[in-house]
Amino acid sequence: MAMYIVSRRISGGSAASTQLLGALRCSTYLRSFSTAFREERDTFGPILVPSDRLWGAQTQRSLQNFEIGGERERMPEPIIRAFGILKKCAAKVNMDYGLDPNIGKAIMQAAQEVAEGKLNDHFPLVIWQTGSGTQSNMNANEVIANRAAEILGHKRGEKFVHPNDHVNRSQSSNDTFPTVMHIAAAMEINSRLVPNLKTLHSTLHSKSVEFKDIVKIGRTHTQDATPLTLGQEFSGYSTQVKYGIERVNGTLPRLYQLAQGGTAVGTGLNTKKGFDVKIAAAVAEETSLPFVTAENKFEALAAHDAFVESSGALNTVAVSLMKIANDIRLLGSGPRCGLGELILPENEPGSSIMPGKVNPTQCEALTMVCAQVMGNHVAVSVGCSNGHFELNVFKPMIASGLLQSLRLLGDASASFEKNCVRGIQANKERIAKLLHESLMLVTSLNPKIGYDNAAAVAKKAHKEGTTLKDAALKLGVLTSEEFDNLVVPEKMIGPSD
Amino acid sequence: MAMYIVSRRISGGSAASTQLLGALRCSTYLRSFSTAFREERDTFGPILVPSDRLWGAQTQRSLQNFEIGGERERMPEPIIRAFGILKKCAAKVNMDYGLDPNIGKAIMQAAQEVAEGKLNDHFPLVIWQTGSGTQSNMNANEVIANRAAEILGHKRGEKFVHPNDHVNRSQSSNDTFPTVMHIAAAMEINSRLVPNLKTLHSTLHSKSVEFKDIVKIGRTHTQDATPLTLGQEFSGYSTQVKYGIERVNGTLPRLYQLAQGGTAVGTGLNTKKGFDVKIAAAVAEETSLPFVTAENKFEALAAHDAFVESSGALNTVAVSLMKIANDIRLLGSGPRCGLGELILPENEPGSSIMPGKVNPTQCEALTMVCAQVMGNHVAVSVGCSNGHFELNVFKPMIASGLLQSLRLLGDASASFEKNCVRGIQANKERIAKLLHESLMLVTSLNPKIGYDNAAAVAKKAHKEGTTLKDAALKLGVLTSEEFDNLVVPEKMIGPSD
Amino acid sequence: MAMYIVSRRISGGSAASTQLLGALRCSTYLRSFSTAFREERDTFGPILVPSDRLWGAQTQRSLQNFEIGGERERMPEPIIRAFGILKKCAAKVNMDYGLDPNIGKAIMQAAQEVAEGKLNDHFPLVIWQTGSGTQSNMNANEVIANRAAEILGHKRGEKFVHPNDHVNRSQSSNDTFPTVMHIAAAMEINSRLVPNLKTLHSTLHSKSVEFKDIVKIGRTHTQDATPLTLGQEFSGYSTQVKYGIERVNGTLPRLYQLAQGGTAVGTGLNTKKGFDVKIAAAVAEETSLPFVTAENKFEALAAHDAFVESSGALNTVAVSLMKIANDIRLLGSGPRCGLGELILPENEPGSSIMPGKVNPTQCEALTMVCAQVMGNHVAVSVGCSNGHFELNVFKPMIASGLLQSLRLLGDASASFEKNCVRGIQANKERIAKLLHESLMLVTSLNPKIGYDNAAAVAKKAHKEGTTLKDAALKLGVLTSEEFDNLVVPEKMIGPSD
Amino acid sequence: MAMYIVSRRISGGSAASTQLLGALRCSTYLRSFSTAFREERDTFGPILVPSDRLWGAQTQRSLQNFEIGGERERMPEPIIRAFGILKKCAAKVNMDYGLDPNIGKAIMQAAQEVAEGKLNDHFPLVIWQTGSGTQSNMNANEVIANRAAEILGHKRGEKFVHPNDHVNRSQSSNDTFPTVMHIAAAMEINSRLVPNLKTLHSTLHSKSVEFKDIVKIGRTHTQDATPLTLGQEFSGYSTQVKYGIERVNGTLPRLYQLAQGGTAVGTGLNTKKGFDVKIAAAVAEETSLPFVTAENKFEALAAHDAFVESSGALNTVAVSLMKIANDIRLLGSGPRCGLGELILPENEPGSSIMPGKVNPTQCEALTMVCAQVMGNHVAVSVGCSNGHFELNVFKPMIASGLLQSLRLLGDASASFEKNCVRGIQANKERIAKLLHESLMLVTSLNPKIGYDNAAAVAKKAHKEGTTLKDAALKLGVLTSEEFDNLVVPEKMIGPSD
Repeated sequence: MAMYIVSRRISGGSAASTQLLGALRCSTYLRSFSTAFREERDTFGPILVPSDRLWGAQTQRSLQNFEIGGERERMPEPIIRAFGILKKCAAKVNMDYGLDPNIGKAIMQAAQEVAEGKLNDHFPLVIWQTGSGTQSNMNANEVIANRAAEILGHKRGEKFVHPNDHVNRSQSSNDTFPTVMHIAAAMEINSRLVPNLKTLHSTLHSKSVEFKDIVKIGRTHTQDATPLTLGQEFSGYSTQVKYGIERVNGTLPRLYQLAQGGTAVGTGLNTKKGFDVKIAAAVAEETSLPFVTAENKFEALAAHDAFVESSGALNTVAVSLMKIANDIRLLGSGPRCGLGELILPENEPGSSIMPGKVNPTQCEALTMVCAQVMGNHVAVSVGCSNGHFELNVFKPMIASGLLQSLRLLGDASASFEKNCVRGIQANKERIAKLLHESLMLVTSLNPKIGYDNAAAVAKKAHKEGTTLKDAALKLGVLTSEEFDNLVVPEKMIGPSD
Repeated sequence: MAMYIVSRRISGGSAASTQLLGALRCSTYLRSFSTAFREERDTFGPILVPSDRLWGAQTQRSLQNFEIGGERERMPEPIIRAFGILKKCAAKVNMDYGLDPNIGKAIMQAAQEVAEGKLNDHFPLVIWQTGSGTQSNMNANEVIANRAAEILGHKRGEKFVHPNDHVNRSQSSNDTFPTVMHIAAAMEINSRLVPNLKTLHSTLHSKSVEFKDIVKIGRTHTQDATPLTLGQEFSGYSTQVKYGIERVNGTLPRLYQLAQGGTAVGTGLNTKKGFDVKIAAAVAEETSLPFVTAENKFEALAAHDAFVESSGALNTVAVSLMKIANDIRLLGSGPRCGLGELILPENEPGSSIMPGKVNPTQCEALTMVCAQVMGNHVAVSVGCSNGHFELNVFKPMIASGLLQSLRLLGDASASFEKNCVRGIQANKERIAKLLHESLMLVTSLNPKIGYDNAAAVAKKAHKEGTTLKDAALKLGVLTSEEFDNLVVPEKMIGPSD
Repeated sequence: MAMYIVSRRISGGSAASTQLLGALRCSTYLRSFSTAFREERDTFGPILVPSDRLWGAQTQRSLQNFEIGGERERMPEPIIRAFGILKKCAAKVNMDYGLDPNIGKAIMQAAQEVAEGKLNDHFPLVIWQTGSGTQSNMNANEVIANRAAEILGHKRGEKFVHPNDHVNRSQSSNDTFPTVMHIAAAMEINSRLVPNLKTLHSTLHSKSVEFKDIVKIGRTHTQDATPLTLGQEFSGYSTQVKYGIERVNGTLPRLYQLAQGGTAVGTGLNTKKGFDVKIAAAVAEETSLPFVTAENKFEALAAHDAFVESSGALNTVAVSLMKIANDIRLLGSGPRCGLGELILPENEPGSSIMPGKVNPTQCEALTMVCAQVMGNHVAVSVGCSNGHFELNVFKPMIASGLLQSLRLLGDASASFEKNCVRGIQANKERIAKLLHESLMLVTSLNPKIGYDNAAAVAKKAHKEGTTLKDAALKLGVLTSEEFDNLVVPEKMIGPSD
Repeated sequence: MAMYIVSRRISGGSAASTQLLGALRCSTYLRSFSTAFREERDTFGPILVPSDRLWGAQTQRSLQNFEIGGERERMPEPIIRAFGILKKCAAKVNMDYGLDPNIGKAIMQAAQEVAEGKLNDHFPLVIWQTGSGTQSNMNANEVIANRAAEILGHKRGEKFVHPNDHVNRSQSSNDTFPTVMHIAAAMEINSRLVPNLKTLHSTLHSKSVEFKDIVKIGRTHTQDATPLTLGQEFSGYSTQVKYGIERVNGTLPRLYQLAQGGTAVGTGLNTKKGFDVKIAAAVAEETSLPFVTAENKFEALAAHDAFVESSGALNTVAVSLMKIANDIRLLGSGPRCGLGELILPENEPGSSIMPGKVNPTQCEALTMVCAQVMGNHVAVSVGCSNGHFELNVFKPMIASGLLQSLRLLGDASASFEKNCVRGIQANKERIAKLLHESLMLVTSLNPKIGYDNAAAVAKKAHKEGTTLKDAALKLGVLTSEEFDNLVVPEKMIGPSD
């Protein structure tokens, strides 16, 4: 069996040295897969592919031409699975339009395996390939074609089921890739991010109820301010997350629009009328999500504004969670020299040198995720702003950026909820102590003695290190009874009647 | 009349040198306003203020303490005007709750002048001040108090109308500043950005209709692709703008929520029950926009996620417009050595050295704006992610960032529409010439002769510099009649029946 | 005198309505300047210009074609001044190459007035114009030509001194604008940013010396950690600023490279050999900064990587200052319910509702500036990444972004130093109290009793709310004497011998 | 052998349900590793670990507590390898300070295996863990301790070699993690990025020499401009890359500073004097890179400005490469309807539907990488701006962001050079055709007939579709001979004598 690679190139370099280099280079890939090869072929000619892999010539060329980033940088799994869903639906609809049912059914079966993640090992390509995602579309076409051929009793590489003519029928990379981007993102939002945000919201809301009677000092400008309840403080957090869910869901209508049927430039050339509507319906049925055909296919291929929009919603969620996690770690700071109002769950030893120290590690993981999401949002925005003419060619990066953000935010929200928020306890003693030492209760004197007198009381107490009451009595602006009646933190946590 | 400044400081430096420095420093400010001063006073003590200015002690202190950026960096005018609206409404509602009607009406009149921009010169403070916007709130309180006092026949500085006790009654900087942020942003969106985007959309749509029968070469990967009509291409642009309008409008519900009534930390301390609802209603009536009171005041003070969300929508619009403007300048490139498919309006001589050269300057102004909007979005996101506890203290920067983006996008969209898009003409000759030279019409042969044969035809024509027809006939895959029947660009711009 | 505008347009709209609109629109501008006009003329034909302004036809067209952002968005003053410097130097060098000395000297005198800021009112154009800055170059050429003509006793508009043939001689907008960008940025760095950062560094360093004997609790993960001195903590800040200065200075070599001499596309067409070197030398002499001619003019016109690089240095400084200002406000939080280790200067009343409250407003102004600088950096990067062929056409935005960042960082550093850092005092009592309550001193037991025993001591003290010593004695791992000998914070602030 | 997990938690949830959940959850991890477990133990108590893995209790806890992102999100390999280097050096230096040589040597041997990547499978932790990287430091300590114990004939988990007391001796996560960040980044820069950029620079430079005599039309504002040589155009690109290398190298001095010796908060507590210098020297020797001990350890732990700085250099490189790759794809656009000046290598079939189409896929991969690098830079900047007190806790994200950017830029530069730039050919016919059709050669008439006349010639030719010569003769401004003498593109590519 052949043990070398024919690396054909149209131009550049001496043939001999290129071949040698190609052979050496490819051996890196091939070593990890197999030591036996078969020949596959595309319009460029023949090329050797590991025998135990289902992919074909175009996938193999991409592997050799884009050695960027290594295995960590492979096309995200949700994209691969979405290709399975799409190719299954395409075969189904193509049978309506005349595709041989025998072949169509085999494609559907093979595509189903892709959708279930069973053939992940046959998708070796990295994100950093052609900007249309063509090579991943061909990877899907080749794997499904070879697998379908096997199902029908034929050999790999013989193209009994043809990757272009059968699996990719009525499709172009230019409409399939945007379509799988939308399928993958919408599924991740619905199955991972939103459920996890809902759980986080629910737990934050429960905490706001649990803490509704704990009056504490407020802080503005990081300085002591008028009191509120710990429950009110957490209600701010839960509201942020609630709105975050609304924001993410608000982007779904445009994610549910599928480009499929636009083919190469958006016109739908080489499809039949109605193909676009039917395939969107098939995907909707397959995923139980309300996908529809995009009203304008030119926009759907040339721009990915829907991804910038969704990424923007994630950026907002990240900003919210950064604020919440920061507050929680600062309110939980201590144990002795911080604010100490919250007791956070201890999940692990915190330091390799300081025994007994337990750190707000869930806040840390979450805020790191938030920073990455903010960065990915810029990457996605830059990529989307750079489309040219009929096709944006930053597609895999845009897809990867949004999907990483979705995955990280979803997972980190779940981890934060489970390993931190759920177990937060109020340090009631500490909260009470701080509240009663505060000078800011003075604000409740405003309506009685006026702003300037109230300021004088606070300043005197501050300067002399005494209580507000002492200062007020010394200044003679109030009697002791008046003070006690006015300065009641529990009466300061809402408007008056 | 006094000609010196008492610059009181709690700490730092020798008193004498500080005073001297302060005097020198302030003279910079004072010189441009006046050479006469009156004394104003706050809880810090007395301070000199230019006689012909309505502001008071706290404004003056801010002027002296924040010499950052100079006049270009003043608080945006929409914020000043929104303060006028808010303070007018607050006086109105406060009268319901017992504010002396005499004083209340004078405040309303003075505030109306602020709302109309008549007192802009009395708002000298820069964005880069306290992060709560307190100093601008006090600037509004002081100006309105002094102006209201004058209306009632009293002198400036005597506090017949008190900036805190009367103008700021039932309010805190912490709820007024977020409130004016929301009022200003919602008004700018409704009165400037969305109308201008609608006009741009409408003109792009008209162009897509005007150009509906002009078949042209498509371009993907910047390479020749299958044809589409110029109208279809413009329909992609108009769809992007249409969705952009939807995206911006979709953020309004949360911008319409007003923090007013939350006072210092969100609890509403020192207000009466119902104050928040009434003031939102008053602002809604005053502006004819559907403002409501925020359902959670803690979120409304501590976070500005609504601004990140709106900024995210603007970021998406910027990404869209960057794409559109880039396409238009590339399609209009030439006159002889570019793509040359579009003829752009000539508005000015383009070069100081190359006569006859006319440049796509409107595209350039617009894309520069888009880059700035993308940058401002990061600034706003960073600011919003950094809130601490009950108050985000990046408010003026967040406000300024969003308002600048709104203004620039709104103005640039209008300029682009008026001075560029409206006058775009199709260079029909050039378009036809390119179309018929293209090799990509070969795609329409796929269904007839298969992908691999079609590829062979295209490659032969490419290699030999001939037409597709020549190549197809030489390869013997089609007859001349078959070719002519199949390769009809006008039939390639949609799905087949 | 004529009171209408002839708004000539090549294409688009009905002539009549355009003219009317143009007239109405322009009246906005003209009203604020003058009610009398003169006719100026360029290759586009005649146009009316306010009589009391020195600019000419091309400036006037830009004013009318780019109504974006209003006066706040005018080209930054350092660019205008740099144009003065450059045009002065160009006239000087051009005289060497044959420019009439009479005209040359008048140009030099007029340009000097521009360089001194005396003619700022004659530079009305906004940033959001042509992306090459051509219109601002022509603004400079026109103003200087008219002013020089006046100096020589001729009338404005007669082109006795010609804006192109004399003032712009041997130049193109494409090389002048990058040149003034570099001059402006290098001057702002040298005269504003670096001196202010040096003062800040010096004051932070002084504080680190002042505080060198104050032992305090350390904090990692916002949790109590092993002690350090307050001086050590401030030494970290001063080191950050020191490196920041090095980073900014490290970008100067590439900013000192001037594009002048490249003319339209970098080739130097229409200049004489040696012109580029001479003009760089003249600018160097004029500014006392070591400017040189760019080694590759193609890079200097088509890319502005030097600005991305400098903006990156500012981004790093912003990140540093954000960290420092955040620490200082948190360490100064209180007065009663925060960390309270630092006492910050009180510069103004902090709240309009909470008397006695004084806020870290200088930290707030500075951190807002930092967020804006981080955002501008993205804008600058996006703009620089989008150059096409021989010319980047995001120049005014790139210039404005960097110059705003320079100005804001410079001013805010000065304000922060003067109004905050300089007056910071250590709250020694509070610092000592927190230190001695801490559990983290346990770390010093590690070498003696091992990690696991030390952890047990800390955990016991934490659980029981007692001191470490109590816990250690109860667990019997140490004697009282051993404890006292081991747990000495002053011995914990460095490595052992 | 035990087949269940004891998931111990201090707080939250009922013990039973938590245990069950924990068991189910962990089974996901464990399934892929092993079905047999051993007990490991830390200060939190016992925990089960897969028998065939070398990690210990703290690693296992992190695995269970941070289920974020899955395997793709593991700590980057360069960090793992750097831990190997560091721990080897630490053991070596610790032996000087009294560490048992038997144990020390075993640690060195085990650490060497980590440095060589042989134990990668034993580093399962994700980036999204504690923000100090403590858990990865403990992962390294545990793996090395267990492996060293085995080398010495002891069993895993028995702590004959102790992860804290031996492997982590004189260290803290707080100084080791910054140290490995610096080691990893400096090594990646020196071994991957800079060599690849140098190769790219060299090839671009070769092209600029190869193309030095090919005169072509210049393009500014995407419009035709005066000519230059293709070699000059490429010299701009090569200069950009040259400066990029300088920029990256310019950040190395601060990356070469190692935090090691600062221990927990920067003081060096629990180390001996001189430890920091010795370990930096050991790392320098081990890596052959000039590492030194950081002059200020407080800065080195609390800030990662050096990473923002390096990331800023990468951002600048990304901006440069985005420009270059965009130009190349536009100059290579076609084959028939684009600019067509460059012929790019064909590496693969470009489209699944359009046969014969070959796309600039290497430009696409590279520009996607550039966008990601720009995004990562924002993530890194946000993370670095958010340090609190003595420790920045965004370390793993910061490390991962920079290392991903380094890897992607390095690999993509190599791929771009090898598969694109190296094979670029000039389409000389096309270039000559465009040049001679251009109107912009008119510029060379300026010195002879003046700007206004030259403009008239160009406008006439443009309007009438004729050549410049025709227009000039018709206008009577020049004779035919004068025209031919003046308009010589080859004379227009530099300044005149």
